Amino acid sequence: MFDVKNIQKLQKILKEKGLKAYLIFTSDPHNSEYVSDYYLAERKYFCPFTGSAGQVLITQEKAYLFADGRYWIQAKNQLENSNIELIKVGDVGVLPLKEFIKENKLYPLGVNFLNITEQSLESYKKAGITLIDVDFSYLAEAKEDKAQKVFKLDDDLVTLSSEEKINKILEESEKQGASSNLVTTLDDIAFILNIRGRDIPRNPVFYSYLYLSKIAGNHLFINKEKIDFSIKNVAIHDYNEIFTFLKAHKDIKTLVDPLRVNARVYSLLNEPIRGRNPSYLMKAIKGKKEIENTKKIQAIDGLALLKFNKYLDENLLKNLNEYDYSEKLEEFRKESSLCFDLSFDTIASVGPNAAMMHYEPTKEMHSVVSDKDIELLVDSGGQYYGGTTDTTRTFLIGKPTKEYIHDYTLTLKSLIHVSKAIFLDGSSGQTIDILARQFMWNEGMDYKCGTGHGVGYILNVHEGPNGFRYKKVPERDDQDPIKPGMITTIEPGVYKENKYGIRIENNLLCVPAFKTSDGEFYKFETITYVPIETRCLDFNLLTKEEIMRLNDYHELVYNKLSELIKDKDLLNYLKSKTAKIKI
Amino acid sequence: MFDVKNIQKLQKILKEKGLKAYLIFTSDPHNSEYVSDYYLAERKYFCPFTGSAGQVLITQEKAYLFADGRYWIQAKNQLENSNIELIKVGDVGVLPLKEFIKENKLYPLGVNFLNITEQSLESYKKAGITLIDVDFSYLAEAKEDKAQKVFKLDDDLVTLSSEEKINKILEESEKQGASSNLVTTLDDIAFILNIRGRDIPRNPVFYSYLYLSKIAGNHLFINKEKIDFSIKNVAIHDYNEIFTFLKAHKDIKTLVDPLRVNARVYSLLNEPIRGRNPSYLMKAIKGKKEIENTKKIQAIDGLALLKFNKYLDENLLKNLNEYDYSEKLEEFRKESSLCFDLSFDTIASVGPNAAMMHYEPTKEMHSVVSDKDIELLVDSGGQYYGGTTDTTRTFLIGKPTKEYIHDYTLTLKSLIHVSKAIFLDGSSGQTIDILARQFMWNEGMDYKCGTGHGVGYILNVHEGPNGFRYKKVPERDDQDPIKPGMITTIEPGVYKENKYGIRIENNLLCVPAFKTSDGEFYKFETITYVPIETRCLDFNLLTKEEIMRLNDYHELVYNKLSELIKDKDLLNYLKSKTAKIKI
Repeated sequence: MFDVKNIQKLQKILKEKGLKAYLIFTSDPHNSEYVSDYYLAERKYFCPFTGSAGQVLITQEKAYLFADGRYWIQAKNQLENSNIELIKVGDVGVLPLKEFIKENKLYPLGVNFLNITEQSLESYKKAGITLIDVDFSYLAEAKEDKAQKVFKLDDDLVTLSSEEKINKILEESEKQGASSNLVTTLDDIAFILNIRGRDIPRNPVFYSYLYLSKIAGNHLFINKEKIDFSIKNVAIHDYNEIFTFLKAHKDIKTLVDPLRVNARVYSLLNEPIRGRNPSYLMKAIKGKKEIENTKKIQAIDGLALLKFNKYLDENLLKNLNEYDYSEKLEEFRKESSLCFDLSFDTIASVGPNAAMMHYEPTKEMHSVVSDKDIELLVDSGGQYYGGTTDTTRTFLIGKPTKEYIHDYTLTLKSLIHVSKAIFLDGSSGQTIDILARQFMWNEGMDYKCGTGHGVGYILNVHEGPNGFRYKKVPERDDQDPIKPGMITTIEPGVYKENKYGIRIENNLLCVPAFKTSDGEFYKFETITYVPIETRCLDFNLLTKEEIMRLNDYHELVYNKLSELIKDKDLLNYLKSKTAKIKI
Repeated sequence: MFDVKNIQKLQKILKEKGLKAYLIFTSDPHNSEYVSDYYLAERKYFCPFTGSAGQVLITQEKAYLFADGRYWIQAKNQLENSNIELIKVGDVGVLPLKEFIKENKLYPLGVNFLNITEQSLESYKKAGITLIDVDFSYLAEAKEDKAQKVFKLDDDLVTLSSEEKINKILEESEKQGASSNLVTTLDDIAFILNIRGRDIPRNPVFYSYLYLSKIAGNHLFINKEKIDFSIKNVAIHDYNEIFTFLKAHKDIKTLVDPLRVNARVYSLLNEPIRGRNPSYLMKAIKGKKEIENTKKIQAIDGLALLKFNKYLDENLLKNLNEYDYSEKLEEFRKESSLCFDLSFDTIASVGPNAAMMHYEPTKEMHSVVSDKDIELLVDSGGQYYGGTTDTTRTFLIGKPTKEYIHDYTLTLKSLIHVSKAIFLDGSSGQTIDILARQFMWNEGMDYKCGTGHGVGYILNVHEGPNGFRYKKVPERDDQDPIKPGMITTIEPGVYKENKYGIRIENNLLCVPAFKTSDGEFYKFETITYVPIETRCLDFNLLTKEEIMRLNDYHELVYNKLSELIKDKDLLNYLKSKTAKIKI
């Protein structure tokens, strides 16, 4: 628990050790997007803020929380009486973290090198900042998370065995001049071994390191209590043995990704071959079984959202709130025994809440859903034995204004134009992105996020190199060409502060279109099967072709979902929600 | 002149010096796209091929010409009886140059380090190839080009003085940690000094090096016979003094661009700060006067093309050939005293010739233009005291087929959709490119070139970081965001082997569109004023909005050109070529 005295205790140590400051990232040794409670504990010990991102910087005299716009209100409240100053990252005239440290000469700076990537460490060094590897997490007395058992994926869930994947990876590593490959990112390890875990909520991964080598053999480092089966051709060691193991094998040329490996582990390698892990791209290109299963569970997921839509229509006058609805949606998903978790915390938001892209209702903080609002935006997904989903629908619950109808129609146009794109091999998300944004840009609007991202298979909902944004963000490493087998979710939207938020999101599978003398062309197959609200469309803004595409989509949704429905009421509801629009 | 004995002479020297091979690039010490005869002489001494690209590799026993598809037929003919083997770069199973050298262990390899960029040298080293800096050009006894006088640009032609430009550059260099900036690219030097030359046909540049420094002063290295005026704050030295100068100043931190500097000059710097030259981006963003003047001379250039169109209509039955027409077009351009050169050799091509993107008629090789062909494609431009142009029109001269009409219409659609784009600050050519290509891609077609490129100001017709292609080509360094003031030419097309080629090309100036709470948006203003053939359009393929855009464009062309026309006949011709299409 946070106490102002915790900071003072640390400041005393900083002075003794001659460190100008100590920096705590919201991070773990595996560069995970979300981290377990264990790795959050240290930050929470020194700072009462509970958000899922932000950095705490403690100098010999002061303490700061660096947080971006999503968290300013929350942080301000939570920091009261903490003596911690909030630094509003992204606000006018505010120095970003690294520049702040440089400007105020807060170095030598203590950092736990387990929680910083090698690439990030190098960027600090390049800025002239001296970093010292220290670990004060013991002060927080964090308790190890309870050992959650990992589980093997059945053969019918995966196209390639882990042995086949390992062979491919070692071949690729050899091409890059390496005899081994050190994999530290948790979703890559889960992918390679065809194993899933429960260490991080919503992300079915398990804390571990994986070392693959033709010379030294294959080795998994994991809390042994978590695993009660053996893996063919892979020796199992305790999680912390990675350090002595790497020291013993430091002279082997090892492929390692500086963008993703933690700096402490990296420092143990004498012969690092810097490059991207082969699994990063392999994981993004789904195989035959992964695609078949994903389509199957997408229909199941679509059914849950259909039921939810009906429930929403029928309960609107009951004064339920956003959190109630998110709970209800989880119930519908869990009706299928294949669903074992959500893929992220459900966003269910009305009106001005929906305009805040990262708003999530909680048990404590939420708004009532009523027909005084125009819309209920629901962005949600499930983890299934058979795939991972991520879908947004903006349900109409009140009377739409002209402006809303206009913006909703633009959003649908954006989604349609990406969905129907045909593109030459070599095209990336950056190539295609403008097909979505053009309608907003023509009117001086823009959504302040990517148009989409890769989606994992029974894995993280944010994944892979198939990002979708209109300009490069090099450190994201997500601008690979879109290839057949990749699943990308596309989520254009319009967000009007204090008014409303609109987003429509489908998962698109890249498939071959045709091969001609000018090259190989690809297209998308939509694999999200959920009706799209049509009662707030301005048909004057839609071309005939666009309406045809919408009708085709609703026909697909009807065919996919009707197979799963026995209840007549629900089937009629599906019929009405997928009714053909007259052209 | 080439003689088989020349190769034998060299091979003897190679053996004496223990070099496995000698490699001759088609290049000069300034990484110029086109080079003067002087720098071509060595290659021509060892190889009878006359194309404008290709590499000659001479081993102790053999000799090879590496040439890409554009030159295979020409090279095959010219290499007859030369004992030189043609390596068809790009053909199935053919190793590219570097891989060929590596595979056959043709190193130590002799190269003139003046004619290879530092970046390229490093890529050879990285591939494990040892390069030795040698210079056998003396064998060719090349004669220095006659010293052509350089000329100053009048004040009303340039927005910033050379002093202002130098100050900006030195500020930018300081930000990158450098006290000096070594500029070796000829168009950058011409831009910075507001001077133009005549050393390379079509490119109004002059051979020189420019060294800018707050510490050591500013220095131009140029054949002193070429310059008969002084430059404020810039000392003038003889061209070859650059080497002793750099040796004397080698310890100054000097900003230098490894992508563009030659390896010999680079090797003289002890403290190179590797980075892009500030002038590269500055040059691309045209100032107020540059824009005003360019618009003025674009109208003059448009008038020449209008006259040409009329001439073509009136002379079709006279059996003139492509080269005759290109000469005639040059005549029309030179009617204006402002036009002092072409910006590249005119491409005038009928039918199957037009399908070859890089075909150029010559006095010796050309086809007759007749109404048996559908089209005459003319891609041409002028160098004016006031700007540089690059325009393509595909004139209808015969009876178009259905397929031709279809493809011509698609090409126009492509041009229209880029021309009307609105895009957020940060968007690059890669962001916008698909607006052009989408129509071809939907049908499995693609043009095998960029959609466009930057255009210089009284400078090289290929310029700058504002490239336009659907995927990254890192070594081109041409994917910067498109900013107001940049001039980009857009040239989509359809090329059908042995049938026809279609291309329509306009120069677009980036201008602000609007600024909203979501950011700054830009758009394009078309600054090429030449009627577009409408008699082979399929109006069923065009939307109302597209036809309106075409009508608006023709209204603009009429307004711009009619001001310059006194001749009633020509005015009537203009009227007919810009007539409004009924919607």
